[in-house]
Amino acid sequence: MSRYLSPRLASLVPYTPGEQPRERRYIKLNTNESPFPPSPRALAGAREAAARAELYPDPTMKALREAIAGTLGVAPECVLPTNGSDEILSYAFCAFCDKETPAVFPDVTYGFYSVFATLYGVPYRTVPLKEDLTLDPRDYAAAGGTVFIANPNAPTGLALSLREVEEIVRSNRENVVVIDEAYVDFGAESAVSLTKKYENLLVTQTFSKSRSMAGARLGFGVASPALIRDLDTVKYSQNPYNVNAMSAAMGIGALADAETFAANCRAIIKTRAYTAGALGGLGFEVIPSLTNFLFVRHPSISGADLYTALRERGILVRHFTSPRIADYNRITVGSQEEMEALVAAAEAILEETK
Amino acid sequence: MSRYLSPRLASLVPYTPGEQPRERRYIKLNTNESPFPPSPRALAGAREAAARAELYPDPTMKALREAIAGTLGVAPECVLPTNGSDEILSYAFCAFCDKETPAVFPDVTYGFYSVFATLYGVPYRTVPLKEDLTLDPRDYAAAGGTVFIANPNAPTGLALSLREVEEIVRSNRENVVVIDEAYVDFGAESAVSLTKKYENLLVTQTFSKSRSMAGARLGFGVASPALIRDLDTVKYSQNPYNVNAMSAAMGIGALADAETFAANCRAIIKTRAYTAGALGGLGFEVIPSLTNFLFVRHPSISGADLYTALRERGILVRHFTSPRIADYNRITVGSQEEMEALVAAAEAILEETK
Repeated sequence: MSRYLSPRLASLVPYTPGEQPRERRYIKLNTNESPFPPSPRALAGAREAAARAELYPDPTMKALREAIAGTLGVAPECVLPTNGSDEILSYAFCAFCDKETPAVFPDVTYGFYSVFATLYGVPYRTVPLKEDLTLDPRDYAAAGGTVFIANPNAPTGLALSLREVEEIVRSNRENVVVIDEAYVDFGAESAVSLTKKYENLLVTQTFSKSRSMAGARLGFGVASPALIRDLDTVKYSQNPYNVNAMSAAMGIGALADAETFAANCRAIIKTRAYTAGALGGLGFEVIPSLTNFLFVRHPSISGADLYTALRERGILVRHFTSPRIADYNRITVGSQEEMEALVAAAEAILEETK
Repeated sequence: MSRYLSPRLASLVPYTPGEQPRERRYIKLNTNESPFPPSPRALAGAREAAARAELYPDPTMKALREAIAGTLGVAPECVLPTNGSDEILSYAFCAFCDKETPAVFPDVTYGFYSVFATLYGVPYRTVPLKEDLTLDPRDYAAAGGTVFIANPNAPTGLALSLREVEEIVRSNRENVVVIDEAYVDFGAESAVSLTKKYENLLVTQTFSKSRSMAGARLGFGVASPALIRDLDTVKYSQNPYNVNAMSAAMGIGALADAETFAANCRAIIKTRAYTAGALGGLGFEVIPSLTNFLFVRHPSISGADLYTALRERGILVRHFTSPRIADYNRITVGSQEEMEALVAAAEAILEETK
């Protein structure tokens, strides 16, 4: 760091995104991307918007907000689109946490939460998941801070029921509860409907995974109009034109193509079942997943060794080094062909380690 | 605001972007957009990137950094692309200002600087421009904080020479000096070359104006590798995938089309001269501009009245209400036809007020 960096940021350890190697062609199962291309309607939107890109986008994102609201059955003033769902999470840390109101989240979850907290100078408290990596909602009763819960959780893939989410929201009326639903479209229950009932609930989602738009960077928050106004204040104080015109148009196009969306989600769920079964057959412990990834470990090979061996065979998965989950790897559910290649590679690796 | 918003943000007054009305077709001269469409090479880039948008963009933006670096004659590690140049400015406030290191900028300049400062809880000090709205570099000698100077300045359009910029950078070795060059391509001197000589200089630029890409949200910073690393720390702690794949590809395409860029800048400069002359002929005081806008006032009509009268005639310009500049309007230099319509409307309005 330079001698000009504020001492406030001296201890900041940035988030490390999954590898995006360009030097070699991998079967890429490390960043939970979709194996399917964006909808043709999304592509048509991008093309039209690009041709008019000399003009600023509508900073209010009216058309996109209406499209999201229509799809989810909420009012447009309950929606705020952002530059990826990381941005709506960043806004939430900025708006709803401070020295007096810490952030509270599980010890094993999306690694960015602690980074946001440090960036904004906010204290945080982690709540350990249970031994089997499940989350007990009772651990969050009157949590005494702004609660961040990924549901389904990453990297475990485990989901809370809607009833359990509501229990957490209800028992934290004095604070905001953020439910990060990046992976909700692959079988879990969304808490969006609860935003009509609870003023303290913010639900975040993304177009990156289930709508094949990771490259477009489009996420959003759904909440009571009062919370959305607060988040809008942060947006207009940090980057009023936060969402570009092409991504907004792609989002509208993607939402209009409900068939492709549903078919792709179904395909992922089917391939996930195949992969879980096949890996289970090889002796892997596979945590039941409601996401587009599987979190797995094997008694006869360490997480790090499996990661390295797969990488040598041209397959990228995600390995985390933090102690509680170092035995595991997180494997994106790609196409059926990709997962068959993964299973074959895993089988060969296990054969070699015998 | 909701009862959950941090009291830290209670006094935050967000930035107000220029109107982007969708209800009626205006001659839009209020947000300094280009009258020309993006380069065909930019559009080709967007199309190709959209088709692969199921994958995350390269978070390091290697190809775009190399393209920018090649165009400007600096090393790729001296470049950081961002989601519009507002974002690189936001990063600079976050990285280089704090309670001990205030922000310092002119009293009449880009209205966002004070908003960033408030968002990050950073004190700031404004330095009055001289009576004629010019900036005296001597007012910034050892300014005692991180200096932010838009050059050319907005909304005045006045520019410092490279020698004057260097004087400010040299006299503030203990602090970072940020030169915001959003409008530099229309005739002013860029300070990019000075980043090789001064470790404390950050130059920011944008693709929004001279490269017709306001809708794509693409900006960047150029600085010493040490400063860029600091800003990268903020990026990876706030939004690692801050630039989407389509905008990055558009930027690479736009940089490859140097002819269109040069021709468009020449056209704006020519139309600017026409407009300044014609408005001068109508009795307007026109501040000499090196940007794609003109800052003008007229002795016989108030700034607010002229703004309103133009709006009624279907022409949008930008009016600021802060006391020192309330007499003026900022008028984007659009196409020759648009500016002829503006001049005709201004003439008719002045006729009516006689």
